[in-house]
Amino acid sequence: MEQNDHFALSCPIPISQYPHVLLAHGGGGRLMHQLIGKMFLAAFRNPLLETQHDATVVELAGKKLAFTTDSYVVRPLFFPGGDVGSMAVHGTVNDLAMSGARPVYLSAAFIIEEGLPMETLWKVVCSMQQAAQRCGVQIITGDTKVVDKGKGDGVFINTAGIGVVEHDQKIAPQNVRPGDGVLVSGDLGRHGMAIMAVREGLQFESAIESDSAPVQDIVLALLKAGIEIHCLRDLTRGGLASALNEIAEASRVRIGIEEKSIPVREDVHAACEMLGLDPLHVACEGRFIALVAAKDVERALLVMRGQGTGAGSAVIGRVAESSAPLVTLKSAIGVSRILDMPSGEQLPRIC
Amino acid sequence: MEQNDHFALSCPIPISQYPHVLLAHGGGGRLMHQLIGKMFLAAFRNPLLETQHDATVVELAGKKLAFTTDSYVVRPLFFPGGDVGSMAVHGTVNDLAMSGARPVYLSAAFIIEEGLPMETLWKVVCSMQQAAQRCGVQIITGDTKVVDKGKGDGVFINTAGIGVVEHDQKIAPQNVRPGDGVLVSGDLGRHGMAIMAVREGLQFESAIESDSAPVQDIVLALLKAGIEIHCLRDLTRGGLASALNEIAEASRVRIGIEEKSIPVREDVHAACEMLGLDPLHVACEGRFIALVAAKDVERALLVMRGQGTGAGSAVIGRVAESSAPLVTLKSAIGVSRILDMPSGEQLPRIC
Repeated sequence: MEQNDHFALSCPIPISQYPHVLLAHGGGGRLMHQLIGKMFLAAFRNPLLETQHDATVVELAGKKLAFTTDSYVVRPLFFPGGDVGSMAVHGTVNDLAMSGARPVYLSAAFIIEEGLPMETLWKVVCSMQQAAQRCGVQIITGDTKVVDKGKGDGVFINTAGIGVVEHDQKIAPQNVRPGDGVLVSGDLGRHGMAIMAVREGLQFESAIESDSAPVQDIVLALLKAGIEIHCLRDLTRGGLASALNEIAEASRVRIGIEEKSIPVREDVHAACEMLGLDPLHVACEGRFIALVAAKDVERALLVMRGQGTGAGSAVIGRVAESSAPLVTLKSAIGVSRILDMPSGEQLPRIC
Repeated sequence: MEQNDHFALSCPIPISQYPHVLLAHGGGGRLMHQLIGKMFLAAFRNPLLETQHDATVVELAGKKLAFTTDSYVVRPLFFPGGDVGSMAVHGTVNDLAMSGARPVYLSAAFIIEEGLPMETLWKVVCSMQQAAQRCGVQIITGDTKVVDKGKGDGVFINTAGIGVVEHDQKIAPQNVRPGDGVLVSGDLGRHGMAIMAVREGLQFESAIESDSAPVQDIVLALLKAGIEIHCLRDLTRGGLASALNEIAEASRVRIGIEEKSIPVREDVHAACEMLGLDPLHVACEGRFIALVAAKDVERALLVMRGQGTGAGSAVIGRVAESSAPLVTLKSAIGVSRILDMPSGEQLPRIC
């Protein structure tokens, strides 16, 4: 049997250390990056996959298209500010936007657990359709699977997306340069804390609502304004800390950010402290960072703030030369420390 | 909250009859078609989705592309003749081929259950890569989620696919015409019975191996030979009976097939009888039907038989005019009966 050749290759993750897949392997931190790098990239090796971008840009029929996929396994299915259906649209639309693409088409594949109330499924589907309409994308192909009770969890949704790249900029984690400015499109940590508050039954003065939202309009406005964008990355699993470390690694630069410039809401701060979490590690679902050429930083900020969901945008740091990839955080009292990638799973199943 | 408008619409599946999703809603039969038609098509309504083809063909940047998605939840993960990894490639490649597209790119999204042995995941990933190589497609984007133990089942894989349509034929279930010939690309029922044999612990003289295989070469050969193809459909969930009923419905024709022309292996027949199953309802993972213009039937058969995986191809029936959509089966002793769509789930989780 020809498969033997491949099966004979030994597993590239050290089995003695990790005999089984852990929740942390899906958490957006160091373990997930190891799994993706050593297993998936090693097996599927090709230059397009290795760009490791939120969406992969391909030349097809003489045009540039972006292609991406994401599964949504968030729990609970409904939470303040969103649900699994709207997230499944926003998340994939945002991944496309991170390559500067205009999102056009989505697929929708459902893995439903036997026994899911039919009305729950209908609510999710309606929410997806509303989100798709708001984003100007069409769901044009789909799949439905049902698994036995106890072998799934309500409903998992996968959406893959196709977008059209209508610009000539090279937007990728590898293209960040010393001098670039780092901008964030709004306040951090609300999605993760909205989910955790529901799960832990926490009561705050006002409910923390997820920031789940499409960001494509902000990105398209930046492109239209002719901003020289070097990299875009949405701040999902692993949060800001993970995104910055990935970029520093890919471009081999130092990224220095200032704590006092990073927008985090008071109630989110309080909730994070209560749960012992760092807001810079917590996932958003409607926020991204833009790394743009030094000359364009101020203009980029104005453009971002001019878009509805970008009203809370801020410049949070700058890129510098470095002998080794590094992310540093300057605290409110002026002390700098290294901002590491989170190691594992802080908040399971938030997306 | 704007979602209220949509949530106010009542669920289009009668809740009194189906308060919960059943395994049968994913089984490829009548219940699944009702769920897709009344819920998904109703909510996501657009002309592209409504083609209800295995892959949807879009014009993008002046070129025709095919786009499709499928999740693979087969149990067990490894079975005679294949595994979830190779299936996840073949299945999606085949869906693209059913629109006459040349498959080019795949995405790969994993939903892993916490506790899956790392070596099992590696075997699945290696098998995917081998299958992708054999099919000439690249896996260029991916996603990894891990769900808590008891909330998944080993690993579920979603692959979405993009193909290039390089011909001008209109291949769709709606385009079948009276006089068309019906061809099948090989013997039926092996995939479903291979899975069932493992699950039920059945012993046969020789193991029944799944027919899981890519069929794109056969389709591309038909196109190259200039065969006038009206419809292609792969015979997965619901088997031949489901596929023919879908086509008869879409084109409003009668399709008459002859039992004695339909290739089914002796051991598969025997296994089906033992389990009380009809081979015409059992899923394949490497077989399809082609409905071609009357003038091209004999030539199409030669082309199909000339390709490795199409060696067992056969002409099994013909399309006729009808006042209502209908599929009829003429038995070996010459008696005709209506071949209905299977109602629900015969074989859960075979794909």
